[in-house]
Amino acid sequence: MALPDSFDLIFFGGTGDLALRKLLPGLYYRHRDSKDTRGWRSYAASRQKLGREQYIEMITATCRRYIPAADFDERAWTAFTQSIDYLSIDGAGGTGFAELAERLRDSGQRIRVFYLSTAADLFSTICAHLAAAGLVTPLSRVVLEKPLGRDLASATRINEEVGKIFEERQIYRIDHYLGKETVQNLLALRFANSIFEPLWHRVAVRDVQITLAETVGVEERGGYFDHYGSLRDMVQNHLLQLLCIIAMEPPVSIDPDAVRDEKLKVLKALRPFTPDTVRAKIVRGQYRPGAIDGKAVPGYLEEKGIPAHSTTETFIAMRVDLDNWRWARVPFYLRTGKRMQERVSEIVINFRGVPYAILPGTDGDTNRLVIRLQPDEGIKLFVSAKIPGAEMRVRPVDLDLDFGKTFKTRRWDAYERLLMDAISGNLTLFMRRDELDAAWRWIDPIQEAWAVQGDPPKPYTSGTWGPTASSALIAREGLAWREET
Amino acid sequence: MALPDSFDLIFFGGTGDLALRKLLPGLYYRHRDSKDTRGWRSYAASRQKLGREQYIEMITATCRRYIPAADFDERAWTAFTQSIDYLSIDGAGGTGFAELAERLRDSGQRIRVFYLSTAADLFSTICAHLAAAGLVTPLSRVVLEKPLGRDLASATRINEEVGKIFEERQIYRIDHYLGKETVQNLLALRFANSIFEPLWHRVAVRDVQITLAETVGVEERGGYFDHYGSLRDMVQNHLLQLLCIIAMEPPVSIDPDAVRDEKLKVLKALRPFTPDTVRAKIVRGQYRPGAIDGKAVPGYLEEKGIPAHSTTETFIAMRVDLDNWRWARVPFYLRTGKRMQERVSEIVINFRGVPYAILPGTDGDTNRLVIRLQPDEGIKLFVSAKIPGAEMRVRPVDLDLDFGKTFKTRRWDAYERLLMDAISGNLTLFMRRDELDAAWRWIDPIQEAWAVQGDPPKPYTSGTWGPTASSALIAREGLAWREET
Repeated sequence: MALPDSFDLIFFGGTGDLALRKLLPGLYYRHRDSKDTRGWRSYAASRQKLGREQYIEMITATCRRYIPAADFDERAWTAFTQSIDYLSIDGAGGTGFAELAERLRDSGQRIRVFYLSTAADLFSTICAHLAAAGLVTPLSRVVLEKPLGRDLASATRINEEVGKIFEERQIYRIDHYLGKETVQNLLALRFANSIFEPLWHRVAVRDVQITLAETVGVEERGGYFDHYGSLRDMVQNHLLQLLCIIAMEPPVSIDPDAVRDEKLKVLKALRPFTPDTVRAKIVRGQYRPGAIDGKAVPGYLEEKGIPAHSTTETFIAMRVDLDNWRWARVPFYLRTGKRMQERVSEIVINFRGVPYAILPGTDGDTNRLVIRLQPDEGIKLFVSAKIPGAEMRVRPVDLDLDFGKTFKTRRWDAYERLLMDAISGNLTLFMRRDELDAAWRWIDPIQEAWAVQGDPPKPYTSGTWGPTASSALIAREGLAWREET
Repeated sequence: MALPDSFDLIFFGGTGDLALRKLLPGLYYRHRDSKDTRGWRSYAASRQKLGREQYIEMITATCRRYIPAADFDERAWTAFTQSIDYLSIDGAGGTGFAELAERLRDSGQRIRVFYLSTAADLFSTICAHLAAAGLVTPLSRVVLEKPLGRDLASATRINEEVGKIFEERQIYRIDHYLGKETVQNLLALRFANSIFEPLWHRVAVRDVQITLAETVGVEERGGYFDHYGSLRDMVQNHLLQLLCIIAMEPPVSIDPDAVRDEKLKVLKALRPFTPDTVRAKIVRGQYRPGAIDGKAVPGYLEEKGIPAHSTTETFIAMRVDLDNWRWARVPFYLRTGKRMQERVSEIVINFRGVPYAILPGTDGDTNRLVIRLQPDEGIKLFVSAKIPGAEMRVRPVDLDLDFGKTFKTRRWDAYERLLMDAISGNLTLFMRRDELDAAWRWIDPIQEAWAVQGDPPKPYTSGTWGPTASSALIAREGLAWREET
């Protein structure tokens, strides 16, 4: 994928956390490492009244913190900042769009990417203003940050309104997990190798576990988070997207729609929850005070911006079934939580044990493939090997592939990758509307059942692996969460 | 496997290379690491007229060289030597057996292991003398070193004569490759894991390569080697045994006869060679002068003890077919040679490529499992992984299991292991007579075709991978030998 010679990138939320921590550093790396960037222009927009110089000062100060010193080249940075302009635009109020149109007057034939890293309720408004100002060209694209709604109805509203301005092929819905190298590698692992496919189905796989565990709490985002909860904030997007990548059939090609067609089929194969199965197969939790790395941390209800009696979940563990031929009766366990014992994102494929134990002590299930996304990226294949000595005794060992050690080159950040994909016009790693709809269609009944049942989430101590009910959920099948490093 | 409380080990060839380098050090380790060795007695026998003290002095001097200093514990060594006696026995002439009988007079109820590390033509004679001296008890076993004959007829003669004295269950035919930890681990890999079996057949495997390459020449064994050649010295035993372990069906149990039944089935499935296929599918070579590690080395014909016009092969490469359901049409390439570029023993399972390349550049065959026996022991699984960066480009990387790093404990030497197996009565890793017969039955027509055809072996320069015909042999199928480290 080559970046185009020229583009205009306009990002809303230009003074926000995402722009400062991810988008600008990512852009900087691409500028620094590319030969000819003369045609690259970026326009930061936010409500703040800042001059261009002030903005550059501000981002220089913050990016210096976010970019490792070894990578921060003063000359490259200065050259990079020269490609950046700043505009004060009020997305809600609609002021500033004329000024933007003025600056982009002569570039109607250039690729134009509008990156909306704002609250989702501004998406429609901003798009309408862009259209009204005549800014939406055939070469325009819009990038939408999550959360795209909080249920099917609100997502549909946003999608329909944005869809009046942009065609589906112009809409890039971000799930930054899809930009992670390891997720990319999961695609490579499955479809660039012949040896996994014979193992990649119900006959060989006993269960699949996907864990996205954070040690942080809600931080400064209490108000936002409480409005969503883990199901909407993590399961609806990241966990389901990872599930799709693991469970999908081989696509016809790597073309965006071929890949997204297969992911959609997975989402459609998700067994819908009923009020009964919501109760039986989903564990909701909410963190209480505890300790992380030996430091006391407050409970969720004590966090800033959280209502005193909030019943929003900060943890969720669920058993998911896929009703299709490949995965029938293979439990997929999804789990995510804040204030967990460890920060770890990983996918575990547990293979069935040997059909009959010829060797003593080999009747357990030791074969597993662990795809680690965080904190380090890598793949481990666990096998039983003989312990040296006279007896034929085995124990699990791992065949290890550490991406950091194997590939010495700097790895692109997920946002850097996705931003460049949007600029290059590669939709593969972005969610199509029907995918998003299918995900919400599956999520909604869970939220509804909770609302009707009215059970509060189960409390768990910060710094643990969540409510004990989470272990009980998986133990019902004689299984256990993998919780080792 | 627990060693018995008491045993008598009588080894013929007590001053020979094998005893000094392998058997005595192995015994020493077992003495050093075992709790109660009061009932363990060893009797070294050879033609040399030595007193016990002289013998102990001699082995102390040599073993000090062969056992790493860190492992050589003076007290443990001294204690060990107290369990060793020496006898001067002339196996051919028959003198000294009465003396041995005298020493073993009171130990008829103990396990008694006769280890014959002598020339094969002495096996029958020594066994007859042992029987005549009344030394063969129901608890006796005899261990036979290779080469056990040089064709089916001579092997049959030896086996029949030894078989008059010892029952088959008492006869331990050594192939020391079977005692290597990695070969053991190959059994564990196949039968303690579920994930390899779905890949272990003609649908998934493109070819199998087994290479046993030495950098040494014939050394001091010129006369012996010239009488045998690589086919008899390496293929008939080590290479075929490794082939059996890879190709065999899962046995009913790990019991010796269950395993050997399956190995026998592999040997019986070997497609017999005809004079035509000998010419087409086997490459014989003989080394010429060259350089190994930058040092000039002589050619085979210049070595000590080699007749000036010898046509004995020091290299062999062959394509072998197994006519059974699991392996039909999968070529097995066997290769062994002296004075090769590198000392390496490894088994390579090359898997077929992906059925259809969805990702660009993935139509090659990168999936392979490499089981390394020498110089280091380990397993590598090669897979294609994505190269970091925006594009979906892949390259082969390996998931690595280094036995030395994974298992910190000292690994038993192959002979140490097999000696202990013989003492403990575990026949699994020893060749049964029908296996040996089947191997010779398959080897004989090759030797006969060579004798009739009269073609001399192809010359190759020392320090290379053998005659170019070896590459051509495998290139016919569009394949290549793996020659990387």
